[in-house]
Amino acid sequence: MNFMSDTAAPAHPAILEAMVAAATGPAPSYGNDPWTKAARDTLCKVFETDLDIWLVSSGTAANALGLSILCPSHGGVLCHQDAHIQTDERGAPEFYTGGGKLILLPGKHARIDLAALKTRLDFNDPDFVHETPVHALSLSNLTENGAAYRPFEIQERAALAREACLAVHLDGARLANALVSTGASPAEMTWRAGVDVLSFGATKNGAVGCEAIILFGAARKRLQELQIRAKRAGHMPPKMRFLGAQMSAYLKDGLWLDLARRANMSATTLAAALTSAGAKLTHPVDGNEVFAHLPPGAAERLQAAGAGFYPWPDGSHRFVTSWATEPEEIEAFAAALES
Amino acid sequence: MNFMSDTAAPAHPAILEAMVAAATGPAPSYGNDPWTKAARDTLCKVFETDLDIWLVSSGTAANALGLSILCPSHGGVLCHQDAHIQTDERGAPEFYTGGGKLILLPGKHARIDLAALKTRLDFNDPDFVHETPVHALSLSNLTENGAAYRPFEIQERAALAREACLAVHLDGARLANALVSTGASPAEMTWRAGVDVLSFGATKNGAVGCEAIILFGAARKRLQELQIRAKRAGHMPPKMRFLGAQMSAYLKDGLWLDLARRANMSATTLAAALTSAGAKLTHPVDGNEVFAHLPPGAAERLQAAGAGFYPWPDGSHRFVTSWATEPEEIEAFAAALES
Amino acid sequence: MNFMSDTAAPAHPAILEAMVAAATGPAPSYGNDPWTKAARDTLCKVFETDLDIWLVSSGTAANALGLSILCPSHGGVLCHQDAHIQTDERGAPEFYTGGGKLILLPGKHARIDLAALKTRLDFNDPDFVHETPVHALSLSNLTENGAAYRPFEIQERAALAREACLAVHLDGARLANALVSTGASPAEMTWRAGVDVLSFGATKNGAVGCEAIILFGAARKRLQELQIRAKRAGHMPPKMRFLGAQMSAYLKDGLWLDLARRANMSATTLAAALTSAGAKLTHPVDGNEVFAHLPPGAAERLQAAGAGFYPWPDGSHRFVTSWATEPEEIEAFAAALES
Amino acid sequence: MNFMSDTAAPAHPAILEAMVAAATGPAPSYGNDPWTKAARDTLCKVFETDLDIWLVSSGTAANALGLSILCPSHGGVLCHQDAHIQTDERGAPEFYTGGGKLILLPGKHARIDLAALKTRLDFNDPDFVHETPVHALSLSNLTENGAAYRPFEIQERAALAREACLAVHLDGARLANALVSTGASPAEMTWRAGVDVLSFGATKNGAVGCEAIILFGAARKRLQELQIRAKRAGHMPPKMRFLGAQMSAYLKDGLWLDLARRANMSATTLAAALTSAGAKLTHPVDGNEVFAHLPPGAAERLQAAGAGFYPWPDGSHRFVTSWATEPEEIEAFAAALES
Repeated sequence: MNFMSDTAAPAHPAILEAMVAAATGPAPSYGNDPWTKAARDTLCKVFETDLDIWLVSSGTAANALGLSILCPSHGGVLCHQDAHIQTDERGAPEFYTGGGKLILLPGKHARIDLAALKTRLDFNDPDFVHETPVHALSLSNLTENGAAYRPFEIQERAALAREACLAVHLDGARLANALVSTGASPAEMTWRAGVDVLSFGATKNGAVGCEAIILFGAARKRLQELQIRAKRAGHMPPKMRFLGAQMSAYLKDGLWLDLARRANMSATTLAAALTSAGAKLTHPVDGNEVFAHLPPGAAERLQAAGAGFYPWPDGSHRFVTSWATEPEEIEAFAAALES
Repeated sequence: MNFMSDTAAPAHPAILEAMVAAATGPAPSYGNDPWTKAARDTLCKVFETDLDIWLVSSGTAANALGLSILCPSHGGVLCHQDAHIQTDERGAPEFYTGGGKLILLPGKHARIDLAALKTRLDFNDPDFVHETPVHALSLSNLTENGAAYRPFEIQERAALAREACLAVHLDGARLANALVSTGASPAEMTWRAGVDVLSFGATKNGAVGCEAIILFGAARKRLQELQIRAKRAGHMPPKMRFLGAQMSAYLKDGLWLDLARRANMSATTLAAALTSAGAKLTHPVDGNEVFAHLPPGAAERLQAAGAGFYPWPDGSHRFVTSWATEPEEIEAFAAALES
Repeated sequence: MNFMSDTAAPAHPAILEAMVAAATGPAPSYGNDPWTKAARDTLCKVFETDLDIWLVSSGTAANALGLSILCPSHGGVLCHQDAHIQTDERGAPEFYTGGGKLILLPGKHARIDLAALKTRLDFNDPDFVHETPVHALSLSNLTENGAAYRPFEIQERAALAREACLAVHLDGARLANALVSTGASPAEMTWRAGVDVLSFGATKNGAVGCEAIILFGAARKRLQELQIRAKRAGHMPPKMRFLGAQMSAYLKDGLWLDLARRANMSATTLAAALTSAGAKLTHPVDGNEVFAHLPPGAAERLQAAGAGFYPWPDGSHRFVTSWATEPEEIEAFAAALES
Repeated sequence: MNFMSDTAAPAHPAILEAMVAAATGPAPSYGNDPWTKAARDTLCKVFETDLDIWLVSSGTAANALGLSILCPSHGGVLCHQDAHIQTDERGAPEFYTGGGKLILLPGKHARIDLAALKTRLDFNDPDFVHETPVHALSLSNLTENGAAYRPFEIQERAALAREACLAVHLDGARLANALVSTGASPAEMTWRAGVDVLSFGATKNGAVGCEAIILFGAARKRLQELQIRAKRAGHMPPKMRFLGAQMSAYLKDGLWLDLARRANMSATTLAAALTSAGAKLTHPVDGNEVFAHLPPGAAERLQAAGAGFYPWPDGSHRFVTSWATEPEEIEAFAAALES
């Protein structure tokens, strides 16, 4: 009954097996190995386009490195006021951009409000030396409130951004969960909707520690700079084959979508248990996260039964399921709620 | 016959097995898991002292993070002119310190010359605002030329540094190899000799990707700052248990020293083959690296036989063995040399 | 009729005369000259306490350097969402702190709302590694909307900050104007109210280009670091005597307060002209800035008459007077309004 | 008898008069004033080409800002090991570039050795991700040892740099002195010799505090970025007219060259007095600096007579003359030497 975070889950056996299988014989260092190349090839197929990648071991590194090639030190990045890059990465975007500024926007369920975005872009003036202009828009899907953007929602925000000469970054730490719940294809949700750089997460959905920074279209020209910045940040581990192996195993035979589907279903069941016990959901359950105001006594009963979860600043609580959540855990959870 | 680098080797089976074994059930994220705690406990025993650690996935990250808590943005770090932090890390120390300066010293076999160190420290003046004073001394053991410092050599350099109020960092990417060849204990070579912060490498000696930043003595007070800086740099991966598991397995039953011994022996044999074929060693072979001027035709013969190795800027060649080097490889190498 | 900004005004003759008088004979460089020492002595008297100073040539430099000794690269600074440091300095605080984060608070007339400040401080947790904790509070007096904080208003905000272990910075680009309108003494408005570091502006009020970063109390221990950071930023001009001479002349015989009084009176008269013509003031006129919604046609009439002023994002207009504003200008302005 | 530094001299009356004259009526802020425009126009004439400028108040700011548009955070700058940017600016280039690296070259009299430059450029590899490639070459004229490069010497170094795709920066803190002694024109010594960005000093030669960053040719495209970086660093003072006025007065009717000629002549006379007293010059006297090994007792006699000068790390002493040095000072100096 650990619903603290999907990062509390172990790694999926198939991914560890792939790492074990990769530990054979010498291989070129720093990403020039066959496993990393295979991961890129598979991602090209999954996303139905040519693309470039860099593999890193944490989502913070993926986001910050990705943003660092889109925003200069004297520029800014638009994001939601609850965005992970703003609230949970200890200033990593500022560190990697060399002092770039995050400019915050409101919006329900951590989806950036379209009108607010438009207003902010309208007075963006890269030629006015005194103010910091924005150079990129960063979206998260799943959002930090567990809601999904559908492809057209990404698209309308990305279109506004592009019109204002901004690049578009997508924090896809839980992209698989959003794809499963919206039924969108990876391509529809990303480059076809206008995304230039994607942080493609695998860690929260079964990997040991592996995220791909994916460059689409014109952003691919920034690959060398991305590698330079990764090297300089210590995110060019010599035995990168073990990141490549993780990513390939994650994608093989749709494992990633299966795992996300499992996590989402657990969340749906858990949300149903909560609402039937009188809790009030505060956000849509579009993935593997449930936010709810609990009825009196419920939090205490759950804790007493051994459930793990976080209180949220607004007085609600957050419950995160994962690929490893067992049906029995949800049942025990529901039972504890009812008791 | 791959002697390009010890990073070309795979990971040791025992280390991968430990990772597989760690993939069981939920665990706290970000280093609060039992595996990471066990790794720290074992390191305390191995180094015979209380210490604090942070685990990262690359040596560059270990060095740069370690230095970032010793040197402010307006300070400098003394190191050898061939130090890895100067020549092979794409400015990572400058990035992590926020613009700190590396001040270079000469010395044979990439050991910092004692007299040059003394001279430089003599006119270090932290109160002179116009010049950049040095705040730390960084040594590498093995050095970048494959030579080892013995404990007293570390000690005499560290003592000078300490007298001048500098902290001492040791880049121990190949510390195991230096310990095996000198017969020194981990404690003798590090904190007893005056080292404050150690980059303790495992990746080149069998890990998948794992290095411990170890804080000794007074430097332990900087643990929180180290964690903050690690977080901000994306070096706080959520499932840190898999780094902890690697480190524990690496240390278990002296595996790390066994692997280093094996690599060193391969280097010794390879060096003997080279000298008996007329090559001239340019540096002591105190670990798993051999630098040699080859007799005419030798490089070509070796390449034709399929051997991998790097030409070095001074006209010599570098050969690196690893725990995974097989006796047959050395034999084939010797045969190719003789032919 | 130039009401664009007080920086459009020339420098006051007495200040230029003092510079000319300082151009005599050799003097030590970098701030060790008698003029700079005299400026510090006079500031001690004016502020009724021992203090340390550093003189710079721009307000942005004063703010950014001042904040850089209060907030580490991995920390944050609380300020109003309309603060000059956030909206008009092109990321200077982020540059000087090495990537620190500005955390924005609301509040009427650009005064930080007390309740909002309290709420934000309540959940500030320096020990939570994932989020950026705030290390300093930055207030502006005059505020960016031309309003003044009275000493007790500074005090109640500073007290909350101090309780939460934050340092307090005051952007006093127009401090003289605030002192004149509130009747407060320099001491009451600053260190007695809890201010640690003050950007004490002279440029907008008659200097050629001179601002003092003033360190009070415990902050004085950071003087050396401040000098180091100033040097490194190119804000340690060799002939600093000419900054010292400006500051001394600015303070001599209360010139600074006379000039501010003059500017404030011009603003009062201008505001009266505006309201009698049907304009609606949007902020208190506590200094030399007037913000107003103009009646239809007024802006055009003023422009046609040659008046200079800026439209403001909220549909109002801003008018800034200075020590150099002539009564005839205000009369002509009023006449143009009425016509 | 102050030979400590040319920055100990006051400002020239004509320059202060120009500042006084500029203090008349309102003027646009931030460099859009007529004085700054006039300064640019005059510089175009003096350098016989179209160029762009940015005015700052210190040489460190000029150098660091100039380099920051030539070298990315992950790149390097080649300079002499005794270059001012390396030894006297407290890491300003590292700060402004965001962690760029200075790569040091040897050479007599602080002129970069041509062969050493060639060797270093030969193995510069911008595509090798692990090492820091150099992006710019920085020369100083006068050099830090008081020697001048003649135009062809600049040219041969710049040509090598350009071939290797480096930009060329010239630290001209004492350019006037070098022009006077070599007889070269400003154009010959700079853009015609391959210089892209020039730090054109006036402070050491009579200004209050004024240096122009001058962009030639293709570098002019970086003007906006230069302004952004200047703004962000607090080097966009609002009343820039007073910098513009300084620069115009400095250039008017050849004042700058007259002042440099005067300083150089004083140095020549002073050097003659030294050698006739048995001192041994350690560097050519191509400008207003004299370096000499003094005969026994001479330093003490000079100090006793009230002369100011600095001991130099190599056991010699440095004497700097300026436009304000009086013949009587040299005579008294010579007398003290002889006594």
